[in-house]
Amino acid sequence: MGQPRILVSNDDGISSRGIQFLVNIMEELGEVVVVAPDSPQSGMGHAITIGEPLRLTETDIFDGVLAYECSGTPADCVKLGKHYVLKDQPPDLVVSGVNHGSNTSISVLYSGTMSAAVEGAIEGFPSIGFSLCDFSADADFSHTGEYVYNIAKTALENNFPRGVALNVNFPHKQKEPIQGIKVCRQAHAKWQEEFNQRYDPYGRQYFWMAGNFVNFDAGEDNDEWAVANNHVSIVPCQYDMTAHKIISDIKTWSFG
Amino acid sequence: MGQPRILVSNDDGISSRGIQFLVNIMEELGEVVVVAPDSPQSGMGHAITIGEPLRLTETDIFDGVLAYECSGTPADCVKLGKHYVLKDQPPDLVVSGVNHGSNTSISVLYSGTMSAAVEGAIEGFPSIGFSLCDFSADADFSHTGEYVYNIAKTALENNFPRGVALNVNFPHKQKEPIQGIKVCRQAHAKWQEEFNQRYDPYGRQYFWMAGNFVNFDAGEDNDEWAVANNHVSIVPCQYDMTAHKIISDIKTWSFG
Repeated sequence: MGQPRILVSNDDGISSRGIQFLVNIMEELGEVVVVAPDSPQSGMGHAITIGEPLRLTETDIFDGVLAYECSGTPADCVKLGKHYVLKDQPPDLVVSGVNHGSNTSISVLYSGTMSAAVEGAIEGFPSIGFSLCDFSADADFSHTGEYVYNIAKTALENNFPRGVALNVNFPHKQKEPIQGIKVCRQAHAKWQEEFNQRYDPYGRQYFWMAGNFVNFDAGEDNDEWAVANNHVSIVPCQYDMTAHKIISDIKTWSFG
Repeated sequence: MGQPRILVSNDDGISSRGIQFLVNIMEELGEVVVVAPDSPQSGMGHAITIGEPLRLTETDIFDGVLAYECSGTPADCVKLGKHYVLKDQPPDLVVSGVNHGSNTSISVLYSGTMSAAVEGAIEGFPSIGFSLCDFSADADFSHTGEYVYNIAKTALENNFPRGVALNVNFPHKQKEPIQGIKVCRQAHAKWQEEFNQRYDPYGRQYFWMAGNFVNFDAGEDNDEWAVANNHVSIVPCQYDMTAHKIISDIKTWSFG
């Protein structure tokens, strides 16, 4: 077997520092192909582009790496990567990120980074989304490199579960080194939004969405606890959204 | 207790026939407030609007019903509905739809209709997304009315599970009447995309995403089977995406 083929995407856009960091590490592991959005797509969730054409443009932004920027969403990028760019040579691994900002707990639903990884899982490829709990454009990724490498290498070497994508979150850079890896569940938490009302120069009202993260989860076996305690969190995510335990309850309802 | 308060949204946009149909039925059950996108948002998944302002404009499109059109996504609409429009009087029920097109099986991930319902569930409200397996703008909804009414009424009258949204799909109108309701799980299926390549008048390449639905699921206890056999499917959906059964497998991996 030759080098593994690794498809890289993200949601912060192809020119973000996080994807450059990820591409550099993946080059140590195999042959890298990039398909990433041409502009930031944060908060895009699992959006896809229906009813509009998609553009795909080759770019030499990554030295010596075949790379395309795409007008679509992160999920579109993975679909185009599979069905067009790598049509005859499917990837051995799909990775997304490294995202500038946390995608723990409920944020997995809103995350473009994770939608690229979940799309990879739907297509049957081992898939991982990487995120750093630091929103800043000049975030320090240096403490995460060895973990990104080891997690991707381990994913390639093990029997990766079908229909699952790993949601990996790194704590922000601290004085102490990272304390280790926690394989865990998604924390029970939510965003408590506030809408900041303003008026534009024409007197028309508009809103900025802002909000606070509220953690309802007292457990220690979840991703919020892990990153808050300077650990790397790994949550295996599935795309079956069925609440299986609730089916029998709803069956007892007498409709109409 | 007074009339229940019902927040209505959708993803086809506020001027679609499906939301008009849903509003008319919900008016028989309670006090209706509409917050819906000002343009079609199909395929938006759980996208939210970050880094851009949102507009909210009151409209008299629904006779005698308080209604707002919003520049954002379906999830944004529910957030604005809860935190601004209904700030001091939370809804008793959130409904979304009726979508022009199926949201069974894997489509739940890409569905703006279901993202509005799931957002309602995250906020702790009983929430239901309704979809009709007919994409056409002039789809016939007439066979679904009694089911929409009964399912919403039943949801209001029962102890609705927390953190769950119901994904309700109706078969397209057939000669035979609907054969009943199936409470079931999400089918295992996917979209097999094809990218149709074309060139614009300036000689630049672009792509249309197209594809075929591929059903891998031989079971009869799933939503695809239900609608294919002229039943209404109801799948309870959760937003915990953790693949709980996989955690112990990944814990056996030796990282690095």
